[in-house]
Amino acid sequence: MHKLVLIRHGESTWNQENRFTGWVDVDLTAKGLAEARQAGRLLKEHGLDFDVTYTSVLKRAVRTLWAVQDEMDRMWLPTVHAWRLNERHYGALQGLNKAETAAKYGDAQVHIWRRSYDVPPPPMDESHRHELAADPRYARVNPQDLPLAECLKDTVRRVLPLWEESLAPAIRAGKRVLAVSHGNSMRAIIKHLDGISDADIVGLNIPNGVPLVYELDAELKPIRRYYLEAPAAAAA
Amino acid sequence: MHKLVLIRHGESTWNQENRFTGWVDVDLTAKGLAEARQAGRLLKEHGLDFDVTYTSVLKRAVRTLWAVQDEMDRMWLPTVHAWRLNERHYGALQGLNKAETAAKYGDAQVHIWRRSYDVPPPPMDESHRHELAADPRYARVNPQDLPLAECLKDTVRRVLPLWEESLAPAIRAGKRVLAVSHGNSMRAIIKHLDGISDADIVGLNIPNGVPLVYELDAELKPIRRYYLEAPAAAAA
Repeated sequence: MHKLVLIRHGESTWNQENRFTGWVDVDLTAKGLAEARQAGRLLKEHGLDFDVTYTSVLKRAVRTLWAVQDEMDRMWLPTVHAWRLNERHYGALQGLNKAETAAKYGDAQVHIWRRSYDVPPPPMDESHRHELAADPRYARVNPQDLPLAECLKDTVRRVLPLWEESLAPAIRAGKRVLAVSHGNSMRAIIKHLDGISDADIVGLNIPNGVPLVYELDAELKPIRRYYLEAPAAAAA
Repeated sequence: MHKLVLIRHGESTWNQENRFTGWVDVDLTAKGLAEARQAGRLLKEHGLDFDVTYTSVLKRAVRTLWAVQDEMDRMWLPTVHAWRLNERHYGALQGLNKAETAAKYGDAQVHIWRRSYDVPPPPMDESHRHELAADPRYARVNPQDLPLAECLKDTVRRVLPLWEESLAPAIRAGKRVLAVSHGNSMRAIIKHLDGISDADIVGLNIPNGVPLVYELDAELKPIRRYYLEAPAAAAA
């Protein structure tokens, strides 16, 4: 049996301000850092350990991973920094708070963007692609793979190659994997593992900073899944 | 022209207490963390940037690297965690402060252990090798390569394979490399790069947390080397 642990980063400054964040590289709040540390303590208390760690290239995920590794006394673990684990790209909504967005586009439209599987928000213009391509963390990404906006379906399509090419082979090889990512990149993995429908995945809430443990069989089918804490928050 | 930056970790708790540390995994002091952050700010101010980072598997080095990456806004950089960059293994002296060691073995003997190139300190017994082999961070190391004590010559011999097999090829491939390590693992690299004699290398002092920049030609011969700050401390 294999174990895989997924963690959504701790609360970020824009979670707190209720802004669409996407690929904007905001940091954790003090509460978010505390959540991350607590996740590390929980993993240690439950005797979970890892051979390799994954994170997105966004600092709210990296800092969450660092805090977890620190609490587990595993600061030396190898880490894969994967842009494919980034949050869903929220296009032109990035930076707007949810009230501003509702005032600009109307509640009904915002609800569609947030809760539909395949309707993307308004895209950034092409200059944004050049900005991303100029960011050294995306230097080795094919510019055509850099999004200007994503619906959840796009995010799933972007995350799954990393699952197939890196995460799943590592798990099959017997490695104990910890992956810190974001609400929608985690949904992508959970949808794939648990075979959740397009309609249902958009309503799945994932709490910040709570380890989600998957027990997987040899074919990487889930046998059991559970949050190490706060199951009430997770069930929302 | 290639650039390579080496940093000795910031002050550790046992630097402060003047204890032989070696492979014992002590943390940074508040001062050491401040030194590490300052190193990151200096690198950023001088426009230095990196494609890949290296650290030992000891937390005083990893935490120094994290602080540097954080200050540089480069938390996503790939990192190689290499046991071969660990500090010199101080054998049975590990944990003793310098006064205790002198009282036990005499000043003259301690001076020889600290300042000779090829006289190792008293070794730990064989059970220490089993302890190290049971530490997951050394799980993939051949147990016969795990030291019970090292003279500086042993440390050089242990560090250089990493230089030849990983650091030098990365630099030759055009990667800008940052490596955070320890007084003696840095001496090993500096000795190799600058062709310093066995007799002279033992007297080379390296300040905590100050970036040492090497400019290297295509054959990785040093053209120029300089500390980004505190040259007075470095010249000691």
